[in-house]
Amino acid sequence: MFKAKIKAETLKEVVDVISALVDEAKFNITSDGVSLRAVDPAHVAMLDLALQKKGFEEFKAKECELGIDIDKLKDVLKLAGAGDILDLEHDEDKNKLILDVGNITRRMALVDTAGMSDPKVPNLNLPAKLIVNTNELRRGLRAAEAVSDHVALIASSDSFEMVSEGDTDSVNLKLPKALLKELDCKENQKSLFSLDYFSTMVKAIGSTPEVTMYIGTDYPINLEFDIAEGNGHVKYLLAPRIESE
Amino acid sequence: MFKAKIKAETLKEVVDVISALVDEAKFNITSDGVSLRAVDPAHVAMLDLALQKKGFEEFKAKECELGIDIDKLKDVLKLAGAGDILDLEHDEDKNKLILDVGNITRRMALVDTAGMSDPKVPNLNLPAKLIVNTNELRRGLRAAEAVSDHVALIASSDSFEMVSEGDTDSVNLKLPKALLKELDCKENQKSLFSLDYFSTMVKAIGSTPEVTMYIGTDYPINLEFDIAEGNGHVKYLLAPRIESE
Amino acid sequence: MFKAKIKAETLKEVVDVISALVDEAKFNITSDGVSLRAVDPAHVAMLDLALQKKGFEEFKAKECELGIDIDKLKDVLKLAGAGDILDLEHDEDKNKLILDVGNITRRMALVDTAGMSDPKVPNLNLPAKLIVNTNELRRGLRAAEAVSDHVALIASSDSFEMVSEGDTDSVNLKLPKALLKELDCKENQKSLFSLDYFSTMVKAIGSTPEVTMYIGTDYPINLEFDIAEGNGHVKYLLAPRIESE
Repeated sequence: MFKAKIKAETLKEVVDVISALVDEAKFNITSDGVSLRAVDPAHVAMLDLALQKKGFEEFKAKECELGIDIDKLKDVLKLAGAGDILDLEHDEDKNKLILDVGNITRRMALVDTAGMSDPKVPNLNLPAKLIVNTNELRRGLRAAEAVSDHVALIASSDSFEMVSEGDTDSVNLKLPKALLKELDCKENQKSLFSLDYFSTMVKAIGSTPEVTMYIGTDYPINLEFDIAEGNGHVKYLLAPRIESE
Repeated sequence: MFKAKIKAETLKEVVDVISALVDEAKFNITSDGVSLRAVDPAHVAMLDLALQKKGFEEFKAKECELGIDIDKLKDVLKLAGAGDILDLEHDEDKNKLILDVGNITRRMALVDTAGMSDPKVPNLNLPAKLIVNTNELRRGLRAAEAVSDHVALIASSDSFEMVSEGDTDSVNLKLPKALLKELDCKENQKSLFSLDYFSTMVKAIGSTPEVTMYIGTDYPINLEFDIAEGNGHVKYLLAPRIESE
Repeated sequence: MFKAKIKAETLKEVVDVISALVDEAKFNITSDGVSLRAVDPAHVAMLDLALQKKGFEEFKAKECELGIDIDKLKDVLKLAGAGDILDLEHDEDKNKLILDVGNITRRMALVDTAGMSDPKVPNLNLPAKLIVNTNELRRGLRAAEAVSDHVALIASSDSFEMVSEGDTDSVNLKLPKALLKELDCKENQKSLFSLDYFSTMVKAIGSTPEVTMYIGTDYPINLEFDIAEGNGHVKYLLAPRIESE
């Protein structure tokens, strides 16, 4: 059983975060809220998302799983105006999700969840922690995209650096400690990532002004940020690229 | 003879309404104003448009016919800013339409009207009449386009409904009597239409807040609305699709 | 040696003017400022640009030449917000241009200037001089593009005219003397130009409200305007098309 009301803006945050990695996803629903884990088709990136009951305007549910086509959710969200609230209800008999926006009702076929696994989130002990301004990161990534398809993230005790080396040109974003909300790094850490994946994740952060990053050396990066006005939390993991030189 | 001044906004309303169905059209001009009838190339939809003399800023004409390429009119309208007034004049010797916008003059070749018929508007006695909010209709159509290529319009004594059934999903817009400006329907009426055609027509309504619809069962729909601040009137007819089930 | 600070808006003006004709260009730098001459690949149009030291926020240079890929400059300018100032510095050891925007550094490979000539600006004695409103010119060109691929520029003692003749339609922009800031023309002058080239040049004028034009008969046109709040000057030359009739 699942019956809820949610702000269109909140659902949009959730949808943006998911669609950065996958086209369809299994929503695990309990009486406390919704959670979701997904791995992208190339098995390079992972998402772990939780949205508490409090993130909804109304929420009544018993344990169930809903396989949802994310593009269809996007279609419905495009119908919503600012401040609109969506009604969601699981029609168990027909296994459809019924969504109401204004005077419109969309009955949406659910995706079979049989083939969808619940990936296990690895327990990484990443030595550096930083809190970075999202817009600085985005501007740095736009600059990097002009010269390369990968980016090195480098944490030291006094700065965070993002370096992209192309064939002829290079781009460098350097944020000294004073420009970081938090920097906890004893030894230098450096890992290389696909620019495409990392950019897509950072874009999905949306309007959240800051993102927490955990970095190691030749280790995955862990990006974390809140959604739904603090009633939801997102954790992205991205595998490093091996530097071949 | 035809010599007139018209607000760019008014001409744009006219052009939007026509270009929903045809690329070129025969404007029938009399001393009282302009009228135009057109049928789309697939003979599925018909337009009957009238723009009175009062819809122009200045208007002097004797009976004549002008065959106009609608895309060319669009080109000229793109040059106009808010509040601009266009000068139109028929150069009978060279059979051109001379349009002035600001300091620009466009001399436009006219299209031969010999092959353009004046379609007869059928006299339909459609049993249900409704006045519907244009924005509600548009939002419903956007929702419907995500699931299907046709839409059923259903009038009953207490509501108007628009239903689109796709292979897996369906979309439903339901406006109860309280949300309709007018609803005059004794027996239930239902007809099915091509979503593409119906959407195009509804988009062409422009900023007019309400549209009058006449509906029957397996009969064409008749959409009517005013343009030119009430000095013009548009009537669209759209043939139904036969439900094959 | 070259080390300077420049407003992003000023550099954008320079880049727009250059990219109308070429993808890469040789910047001639002296202690007084920057100058640049370029000819488009088809040898139809020429650019002569000068930006004085005063057009920069800071400027320190000794004579040198920098071959710059204009698209790369555009990439960097896209990172700049309103009011941003860019740092430029020539790294002579590595022959790179180092650009800083905010916390981002882009190290840009320079283009070999060996193959880039300094075209000689011909000394034309063009008999008519006009100062024309840029927006009027732009609107006229948009109108002309709908009917033809060339445009005749005509100066007389009492007006400036721009005429485009297509197969069926024609477009005419006529600005009487009262609408021109200056008109100095004793005998009628008329030359025909490629609409594509002339439009591209006029677009590159940017927000400068007026442009000075020197016109002859079957002679190149000379377009001149200031950039960088009067601290820079641009001169475009465009060869005429030969009328074949």
